[in-house]
Amino acid sequence: MNITHIEHLGIAVKSLEESIPYYENILGLKCYSIEEVADQKVRTAFFKVGQTKIELLEPISEESTIAKFIEKRGEGIHHLAFANQGVAEALAEVEAKGVRLIDKAPRKGAEGLNIAFLHPKSTCGVLTELCEKPE
Amino acid sequence: MNITHIEHLGIAVKSLEESIPYYENILGLKCYSIEEVADQKVRTAFFKVGQTKIELLEPISEESTIAKFIEKRGEGIHHLAFANQGVAEALAEVEAKGVRLIDKAPRKGAEGLNIAFLHPKSTCGVLTELCEKPE
Repeated sequence: MNITHIEHLGIAVKSLEESIPYYENILGLKCYSIEEVADQKVRTAFFKVGQTKIELLEPISEESTIAKFIEKRGEGIHHLAFANQGVAEALAEVEAKGVRLIDKAPRKGAEGLNIAFLHPKSTCGVLTELCEKPE
Repeated sequence: MNITHIEHLGIAVKSLEESIPYYENILGLKCYSIEEVADQKVRTAFFKVGQTKIELLEPISEESTIAKFIEKRGEGIHHLAFANQGVAEALAEVEAKGVRLIDKAPRKGAEGLNIAFLHPKSTCGVLTELCEKPE
């Protein structure tokens, strides 16, 4: 494992239209991109804060895991994503140490990154993502 | 408001002793400090990840808000803290814009920082802290 920084924080919101004004007008951050990630059934809005991005996640279907998260727990921080070049190797390494994986191999996520999730049962309750820029 | 980066992420855990090995042995981070914050009834463990710290929060009393958080929602990310020089001015600014404050004025937090919390009812569900190094 070779984590360099927190790549992003995923935050579940009911509505981008209602949430973006808080991040822009209150916190003074700037939304630089809105993107739909069809296979996760979400629309995302991105902000940059130092090294880290904030990724707002709005469900576009009741089937979305984000819709289920909000229904169960309300809006809030959904996952923590670390930047780690070598996601495939990191998955093998942590699985050998007993960590339960959600993704056995990296897949494509928002912004074209290679991503994989670790199961919160193995990560002290924090849904954890590893991601890297494709080479 | 003049946010420069994410200063730390506060993560509620049942036990530092059980959680620190995950952060050290699986994620490869290094715990550089353990500190008791008596008035919040927690013990904290700190890790550095790029610009940002991870602050594990273990309740040392059932009266701790962290104990109540874990009881209600389980272990997980508790709050998001932005670095913002000028916390007092920022509080006045966001209160004037209608944000509900938990702390009307900065107070001392872990690592000697001046801190203040905004209420999650005003921050799209994310318990949000502002913090600065004292001058």
